[in-house]
Amino acid sequence: MRILGVDPGMTRTGLGLIETTKSGNVQAIEWLTIETPAGLPLPERLSELAADLKQYLDETKPDLAVVEKLFFATNKRTAMDVSHARGVIMATLSSHGIDILEATPLQLKTAITGDGRADKKQMQSMVKRTLKLKEIPTPVDAADGLALALYGAFTKKFF
Amino acid sequence: MRILGVDPGMTRTGLGLIETTKSGNVQAIEWLTIETPAGLPLPERLSELAADLKQYLDETKPDLAVVEKLFFATNKRTAMDVSHARGVIMATLSSHGIDILEATPLQLKTAITGDGRADKKQMQSMVKRTLKLKEIPTPVDAADGLALALYGAFTKKFF
Repeated sequence: MRILGVDPGMTRTGLGLIETTKSGNVQAIEWLTIETPAGLPLPERLSELAADLKQYLDETKPDLAVVEKLFFATNKRTAMDVSHARGVIMATLSSHGIDILEATPLQLKTAITGDGRADKKQMQSMVKRTLKLKEIPTPVDAADGLALALYGAFTKKFF
Repeated sequence: MRILGVDPGMTRTGLGLIETTKSGNVQAIEWLTIETPAGLPLPERLSELAADLKQYLDETKPDLAVVEKLFFATNKRTAMDVSHARGVIMATLSSHGIDILEATPLQLKTAITGDGRADKKQMQSMVKRTLKLKEIPTPVDAADGLALALYGAFTKKFF
């Protein structure tokens, strides 16, 4: 079972792809980011994000995607940009026929570390340990992608 | 020159299509809404919106689209939903290769009525008059679509 975690962003969207097996193993396949150039007009950045994600889905064929749910804690400009990107991501995943889960930061932290107030560092070291990686995965958005994918595996009891 | 005005919404997106001629005429071709069922999961609503809009663009082939710019005056839940829809709309228009203009409510009101504080009623009667319609166009989201299309015609000096 292939699970893709997606941390939406206009400038940088984090992706983490993991695979679970029936025997109860889980492994990271890869983690990366999709970036769109800040100099491009908004509509072009969004269509580029959609095209890049679509290509990635065609190549990797995940069975499930987990997308981080947003909150408007930060400034409104950023929130609006992330929401634009998130809308595009959800539509692209859905038109690809992939099952989609949403996870709030609280749900994510609780599932990965057992502590809803876990900080970034705790999250990253749990992701590293669970996926038996040699180092903390970087960049941080891609690591968040892996955490989201693991959330999907835990929630769906895939391993 | 065909201009499509788009008033983004998750439940209901307003569309207004107008045509300008070299001789300086402008006429409304049609106005309508794209609706997505409230009962569907968010990703499906978004991919349905993208698919419906894409089909509409294939059929009508506008040269320019004008999309309303958002402000976070209302509640955050609504703002997030509208931003999701707006992102999908912008990506769909852009991947269709259509030129895109954005208009804030202030720019829109100023261009249509000459008064940045114009109310809905003033806007609607100016749209009716400019497009020589027999009645105020309804529903209100579709009328907003026509206003946005007219904004494009004024801004680009198409008539």
